[in-house]
Amino acid sequence: MKLYTYFRSSAAYRVRIALNLKGLAYEAVPVHLLRGGGEQRQQPYRDINPAALVPALQVDGVTLTQSLAIIEYLDETHPFMPLLPQDAAGRARVRALALTIAADTHPLTNLRVLQHLTGPMGLSEESKMDWYRHWLRDGLAVLETHLARDGETGRFCHGDTPTLADCCLVPQVFNAQRFAVDLAPYPTIERIHAACAGIPAFQAAHPSAQPDAE
Amino acid sequence: MKLYTYFRSSAAYRVRIALNLKGLAYEAVPVHLLRGGGEQRQQPYRDINPAALVPALQVDGVTLTQSLAIIEYLDETHPFMPLLPQDAAGRARVRALALTIAADTHPLTNLRVLQHLTGPMGLSEESKMDWYRHWLRDGLAVLETHLARDGETGRFCHGDTPTLADCCLVPQVFNAQRFAVDLAPYPTIERIHAACAGIPAFQAAHPSAQPDAE
Repeated sequence: MKLYTYFRSSAAYRVRIALNLKGLAYEAVPVHLLRGGGEQRQQPYRDINPAALVPALQVDGVTLTQSLAIIEYLDETHPFMPLLPQDAAGRARVRALALTIAADTHPLTNLRVLQHLTGPMGLSEESKMDWYRHWLRDGLAVLETHLARDGETGRFCHGDTPTLADCCLVPQVFNAQRFAVDLAPYPTIERIHAACAGIPAFQAAHPSAQPDAE
Repeated sequence: MKLYTYFRSSAAYRVRIALNLKGLAYEAVPVHLLRGGGEQRQQPYRDINPAALVPALQVDGVTLTQSLAIIEYLDETHPFMPLLPQDAAGRARVRALALTIAADTHPLTNLRVLQHLTGPMGLSEESKMDWYRHWLRDGLAVLETHLARDGETGRFCHGDTPTLADCCLVPQVFNAQRFAVDLAPYPTIERIHAACAGIPAFQAAHPSAQPDAE
């Protein structure tokens, strides 16, 4: 199993957590998102993932892209340590929490968007960071509201074992900390993040623990 | 089953297609995204979906949000006319195609982002439309590359029956047509869109066929 990854990529970080939670060994192939204009935009990676985004996972003779699709695949093919609940309503809730980050928050604040704001759009660094923090806070606030009010929230986002939602929450909190976004308004997120941070599978997936960490 | 919807919302349009493909009757509750600063941002809808986005689906005693999570729920609880393939690799491919639109494209170009660009960011209408077309074209180009090269592409995005990916493709093409984005560079998308457009379930989900259409 070969994971194309970048130490600081949120989406790759999600998949690393899932692989580690399931105890699946993989070969990490670093794709440097900044060097030489971004290795993800060039061959050979562009053929592996035409979206020029990490991660991609080569497994069972196929190349998978999109972190959530990859994690669902791993969950279906390796049922040990399930990352989705057994009931349809629970699965819908976990997927919705995951998408609150992976669709409504992270795509607005990832590297290519930030580069587009200061490049073709001609915005200042300050405007770029305003944009970044605006959407990050917006996403965290929605997530906090769900987690704080829903009876299904437990030690983790859904019950007392980690799910796909926690695989998404932790990298998003890492980003918030990296850019000094105050997490005090999101106490449930902070509590769940702390619970995850105590687990070796999450620790081994942290950007600082990756072979390509800088 | 009660669907909170707006006729022109891409995400609501996806769920309408899925409901129609499965032959599920529902009550449409319109949420006007522009009137009075946006009904989605106010009570009572804000309690239904704290993200202040449509759609939300009330079904089986729960409130579901996030279009992809809703469609997966409908597919699990109503297996007739499956919207995901039987094999794990096929499911991963369909989910990745859907996420190329629902995570990498549409969230960058939806109403709240466009309003933020011309509001707090102070950009001109022209800059806003440049932004819109840039990310829309980027997303369509990635989708076209996958669809044109993959052997799994058939009459529809994956084989010869509509899937979750087609539920996402059609509303994105509607947006492109609405804002005069030329579709000639994406012939496979155009071909699949035409195949979908011939199906009554897709026709009945079209924005112009909704009770709240303007």
